[in-house]
Amino acid sequence: MTADLPAGVSLHPLREIADARGAVLHMLRADAPHFGGFGEVYFSETLPGAIKAWKRHRRQTQRLAVPIGRIEIVVADDRADSPTRGSIARLTLGRPDRYALLLIPPGLWYGWRALGDTPALIANCVDLPHDPGESETSADPGMLGQFQW
Amino acid sequence: MTADLPAGVSLHPLREIADARGAVLHMLRADAPHFGGFGEVYFSETLPGAIKAWKRHRRQTQRLAVPIGRIEIVVADDRADSPTRGSIARLTLGRPDRYALLLIPPGLWYGWRALGDTPALIANCVDLPHDPGESETSADPGMLGQFQW
Repeated sequence: MTADLPAGVSLHPLREIADARGAVLHMLRADAPHFGGFGEVYFSETLPGAIKAWKRHRRQTQRLAVPIGRIEIVVADDRADSPTRGSIARLTLGRPDRYALLLIPPGLWYGWRALGDTPALIANCVDLPHDPGESETSADPGMLGQFQW
Repeated sequence: MTADLPAGVSLHPLREIADARGAVLHMLRADAPHFGGFGEVYFSETLPGAIKAWKRHRRQTQRLAVPIGRIEIVVADDRADSPTRGSIARLTLGRPDRYALLLIPPGLWYGWRALGDTPALIANCVDLPHDPGESETSADPGMLGQFQW
């Protein structure tokens, strides 16, 4: 699950605390070594079979967890100065075995699709509040033109 | 929905941005007037029919939203110096019509139950990281001894 991540991308296992009434699920604390500040927390629901791709931020770091459902997320490194330029990582996120925080620094293309028959809920606790001027979307970034989900 | 809240409790409507692939759901931004700092964000899943109650914090402010499912949440004011001492508020939270951020300051008892036939996911973005020494739980706080869900 952690192999071959682009430089600067990191995956942090998260605790799920079982409870007969429903689990408690950790996501991010201000005293975590990888915290880096709080800008906003929001959710992106993704319906079965749906794809949300591709997006790239100039300044904002993504910190994603999937408390409901499962997704396949793809992170592609097209950064001119990156030691891992050209790498494309595919990861599955979601309970029960892949509940973790994925940190994606600025400059990387990413996107995801929902797996399975139920909607997925992606939580994103970013370091800067949403600013439409600092991100771009593309249906076909150069290095992902031939990508097959 | 906002009537008769105990002093200091507030409810802030949140945006749900419709999308054929799945909605984007706001929760909290660092530049919101009611922000007050970031300590931790975590989730509490609550299974159909389950009740999680009662809890009271000494220092931490709860900021709750329900992106999945629906809950009934109860907030009870037993603060000696409160102008609304003795009040008990019952609110429903959840999409589509009651997607909002509920802010509960320290000193109030609260608890919830899941409504409907599906699990609810409660997101809590608190101002201080979890510290077991600053909260207490009780199956029967004095003023809620006769409470009927």
